[in-house]
Amino acid sequence: MALIVQKYGGTSVGDPDRIRNVAARIKAARSEGHQLVVVVSARAGVTNELIARAKAVNPRPDTREMDMLLAVGEQETIALTAMALHALDVPAVSYTGSQAGILTDVTHTKAKIKNIVPTALRDDLKAGKVVIVAGFQGINEKGQITTLGRGGSDLTAIALAAALKADKCEIYTDVDGVYTADPRAVPDARKLDEISYDEMLELAGSGSKVMQSRSVEFAKTYGVVFEVRSSFNLNPGTIVKEEVAYMEKVVVRGVAVDKDQAKVVISQLPDKPGTAALVLGALGDAGINVDMIVQNVGHGGVAELTFTVPKDDAHAAVKVLPAVFAKAGGGQVVAYDNIAKVSVVGVGMRSHAGVAATLFRALADANVNIELISTSEIKITVAVDRAKADEAQRAVHRAFKLDRG
Amino acid sequence: MALIVQKYGGTSVGDPDRIRNVAARIKAARSEGHQLVVVVSARAGVTNELIARAKAVNPRPDTREMDMLLAVGEQETIALTAMALHALDVPAVSYTGSQAGILTDVTHTKAKIKNIVPTALRDDLKAGKVVIVAGFQGINEKGQITTLGRGGSDLTAIALAAALKADKCEIYTDVDGVYTADPRAVPDARKLDEISYDEMLELAGSGSKVMQSRSVEFAKTYGVVFEVRSSFNLNPGTIVKEEVAYMEKVVVRGVAVDKDQAKVVISQLPDKPGTAALVLGALGDAGINVDMIVQNVGHGGVAELTFTVPKDDAHAAVKVLPAVFAKAGGGQVVAYDNIAKVSVVGVGMRSHAGVAATLFRALADANVNIELISTSEIKITVAVDRAKADEAQRAVHRAFKLDRG
Repeated sequence: MALIVQKYGGTSVGDPDRIRNVAARIKAARSEGHQLVVVVSARAGVTNELIARAKAVNPRPDTREMDMLLAVGEQETIALTAMALHALDVPAVSYTGSQAGILTDVTHTKAKIKNIVPTALRDDLKAGKVVIVAGFQGINEKGQITTLGRGGSDLTAIALAAALKADKCEIYTDVDGVYTADPRAVPDARKLDEISYDEMLELAGSGSKVMQSRSVEFAKTYGVVFEVRSSFNLNPGTIVKEEVAYMEKVVVRGVAVDKDQAKVVISQLPDKPGTAALVLGALGDAGINVDMIVQNVGHGGVAELTFTVPKDDAHAAVKVLPAVFAKAGGGQVVAYDNIAKVSVVGVGMRSHAGVAATLFRALADANVNIELISTSEIKITVAVDRAKADEAQRAVHRAFKLDRG
Repeated sequence: MALIVQKYGGTSVGDPDRIRNVAARIKAARSEGHQLVVVVSARAGVTNELIARAKAVNPRPDTREMDMLLAVGEQETIALTAMALHALDVPAVSYTGSQAGILTDVTHTKAKIKNIVPTALRDDLKAGKVVIVAGFQGINEKGQITTLGRGGSDLTAIALAAALKADKCEIYTDVDGVYTADPRAVPDARKLDEISYDEMLELAGSGSKVMQSRSVEFAKTYGVVFEVRSSFNLNPGTIVKEEVAYMEKVVVRGVAVDKDQAKVVISQLPDKPGTAALVLGALGDAGINVDMIVQNVGHGGVAELTFTVPKDDAHAAVKVLPAVFAKAGGGQVVAYDNIAKVSVVGVGMRSHAGVAATLFRALADANVNIELISTSEIKITVAVDRAKADEAQRAVHRAFKLDRG
């Protein structure tokens, strides 16, 4: 008998039929003799409905009240999921985040889990019940309801798996697992059987939308092995776990593309110490997330600084910078919002040479121009024209033979 | 500076405009220097939506899970009301029933309040904040969410007013207060300035839909004076309080009509001790609420037993009885589902004679036939043909000069 934590996302519990489907899956797992803790999200769409209702009474709602409001989404789903299980004669009981003992810090709308005290939940598990827990929410030391921010339900599941020392953690979503590339852009993309935490993190940070980084980081920290799989079929998914030696045999695990990027080019910047720090400091203060930075020192004592930002931040960057130029004694800025980032990720890069060369050759052969390059230990990212992103992804996927496993 | 508990019902918070209206009223009361605790219901309709979602996954949902589900209705309203107050620069903070310390017994869907421990709430009041509390809900000793059943939000408000020793308790609804009769049926019905708990209780038990009896009973037990008034205008409402001497000058305070009644006539019942108990016991066991009982002993050792039941229970009564007749050695049953109860209520009846005579004469003059009669210390009820109910109500209203105050 194993203890399994399952998590079902918003599309998996989006309507009564889907809730019944989830209940049937839970019943099947239980009939194999397992103990089950099931984390569910709010049904797809309900969070946006609630936000719209909030904005209708206050354009800038207070974060504490926003958490009070948003928490109702999961509370509805846990009750309905428990009821659907009862209809299948499966004993089940629902828990809010607070009742499940998910203790967080006091930061509303993006609280961090501090501790989990699942005392009552353990008693119900022992009594043979399926325990349904509201994802995304917790309670702080003042007794106030908090929410965990984007990807919060995944985090609840992984944190509960860690706290309960679960044997398995299964993250059910609307895709079959983690792919070598986006199957919509790359028809011969292949589902991965396994991936390491670090690779998963680099993919998440590079535009792969399967999971938020913080849940993966939490799993890595606490050594929670989890599987990403679909709630709509019975296919095995992708197991995310600590890197093991044989993983290095695969040089590149996958390709990720982020199409919502812009390139900001600053020229005529006086080439003196501290200028780049001034620029980047001002952008950081404005909450603009700068990535892929390249600086060229030109002639005549002026430098050029180029970086990428999320497309939605490009306008803000252009507005912030003139004040910096005034202080720095010069500078001009132009933004190009037609940029995509293409990244290859693999722990095998650490021990294999020539990855960059293969990547650049593949892109050159496909006639894709590289605008910027950045590298980490297990990732190489290039910025390209967005119109060429899918072509670039396919060329890279082919070059690293990712279709062959 | 007074401490005021206000309660706004589902229609008063039914959409963003109405929530803003409620916020404006709260702000006005606060700007007069008062401390405010505001109890709100789920917006009108949301409870039915949630019940429909429950039935879609389970035709007979578990009561614990039903409470978990239904509690989201008020949780949404408290957050939105607090946000609407913030938009008017009024400091406000929302509390679920659990956070407000509303401790109940373990009976789901119709829990009783055992105690209120409003410690955190008191701190926020002292800090100058308006405290918004979710009506209808509490928490039991196991930490499970409970709901208080019909009229639960009124009960929350009155119980909080008692626990906080509030100076005033205002129940805002969609009518101006308690009327001498239903204004839709009796055009010259008049709003009462004051009414005693006992009169209010008799009216509530006789078909007046302003408030559930249990909230009034609670108010009576704890001596909470409250005012029923409209959230859609500034008219003063009706104050409900302990009876005072001058109230007896008014013989009849009001007329109530309940049109959803049926009459059940049992004949050929053997006239021996214990038979009536057998009949009424069986109906009680079947959860059928019997009212207005009349027994006639006829000739030949058989009796006739007639009573009223809510219309929806008539069919069940007819199904339950044959088994009783078999045990009792005889009996026949016929149900008539076209019955209305017309009641006159007033504490003055205790000290005034002739009320029944005036009532019967008024009905006779209006050509309304009386089918059954029952009396209490401060109420006389007659059962009449439903088709004559409005006419009867108008005749009685006129006979007791209720239009003149």
